[in-house]
Amino acid sequence: MGWHWQMMDDRGRFITFEGIDGAGKTTQIQRVQGWLLNHPAWRSRRSLVVTREPGGTAIGRQLRQLLLAGPSLAEGEGERLDEGAELMLYAADRAQHVATVLVPTLMQGGVVLCDRYVDSTIAYQGYGRQLNLKMIEVLNNLATSGLRPDLTLWLDVPVDAGALRRQRRSPGEVGDRLEEEGRAFHERVRSGFAALAQRDCDRVVRIDGTGDEATVFAQVQGVLRDRFRSWYGVELD
Amino acid sequence: MGWHWQMMDDRGRFITFEGIDGAGKTTQIQRVQGWLLNHPAWRSRRSLVVTREPGGTAIGRQLRQLLLAGPSLAEGEGERLDEGAELMLYAADRAQHVATVLVPTLMQGGVVLCDRYVDSTIAYQGYGRQLNLKMIEVLNNLATSGLRPDLTLWLDVPVDAGALRRQRRSPGEVGDRLEEEGRAFHERVRSGFAALAQRDCDRVVRIDGTGDEATVFAQVQGVLRDRFRSWYGVELD
Repeated sequence: MGWHWQMMDDRGRFITFEGIDGAGKTTQIQRVQGWLLNHPAWRSRRSLVVTREPGGTAIGRQLRQLLLAGPSLAEGEGERLDEGAELMLYAADRAQHVATVLVPTLMQGGVVLCDRYVDSTIAYQGYGRQLNLKMIEVLNNLATSGLRPDLTLWLDVPVDAGALRRQRRSPGEVGDRLEEEGRAFHERVRSGFAALAQRDCDRVVRIDGTGDEATVFAQVQGVLRDRFRSWYGVELD
Repeated sequence: MGWHWQMMDDRGRFITFEGIDGAGKTTQIQRVQGWLLNHPAWRSRRSLVVTREPGGTAIGRQLRQLLLAGPSLAEGEGERLDEGAELMLYAADRAQHVATVLVPTLMQGGVVLCDRYVDSTIAYQGYGRQLNLKMIEVLNNLATSGLRPDLTLWLDVPVDAGALRRQRRSPGEVGDRLEEEGRAFHERVRSGFAALAQRDCDRVVRIDGTGDEATVFAQVQGVLRDRFRSWYGVELD
């Protein structure tokens, strides 16, 4: 705790992907990873770490199981996960992730692609569950020691489109706890991301996530090309 | 979250037991439980719940395993539990405990005997690990929604006495992560409890824990007799 990102010189870069479930984050991250790793301008320049929250660490993967399964994993006692406890489990996962994965990678000049970060907590717990936003901000600051993304790609899709993709992904399966929330919940979450994109417009770039994978990826590439040019003077054609 | 204890009338009572490892908390709690449940003045008056932190809930028991075993449970990857993450796991355990055990019991007028609560976090993480005390206070307030014990019995033993008891309890066994900390750590933890006893002298009562079980229990009984008389007008001879 207490580490200050701003003090570094040869910086790694921290890129997060955000959006409602079914927005296509995982797919796009995989595409970006393949694109960068195979690009002549990139190869062997710096390490690329693909990770996610929750569950980007060994301890985090255990917390992720608790968070996604919730009551059913709790020794079969049907105990409901308290919303405050849920928030703190996300914070614990994040603190572990920041300390053991994000900071070490960025300190060595690596680039991180992370599936969800603080914006998801604000959107899901703050807007979705309507927990106190100030409390979430305090917890996020404690958990991250102030580490903020250099760039956040918000893959924006309407709630119905996200639901459809989730269904296609796992047809017939019962969704996990988060995904079982209702439509109004996901609308609030989406509005949370929209509010963040407006508030932190330098950091958060909205990507229209409704097209096919290639169309969305072209937009993602456009944003990343600009950033990598200004960050590293690299041309990623 | 946001529940206010002070607004209740027919109050349950929340009694916590604190002290370094090996101070005798578990033993004394069992004695108090036996004494109260078998006492004619008590019987069937109100429910008595014996619980602990971490691990007073189904979800908390999973967190307790993570907290006590730390790295070794983390999928064998030898990942060290970050101190900030540890703090937040304790907070998550506490939020779940407050919401699903403590508040419901106290709302129904029950009496709770709890093995460790916020004072342990202040003593172990704040004084022992020397994390920021203000940050711990913020987290404790979020996790408890302001629920404070009516009475805290601090079983005070010198660090050597505690170590000796821990050894007797599990001879030859490798201690858990917390108990493997060094002597200086436990001295700092003890000084933390002392600071709390001074700061919250109305709530925290120091019990000399160095004597044999019966001697210590006589002191505990003395304090509880006084409190139960003033709380409930009950005479516990």
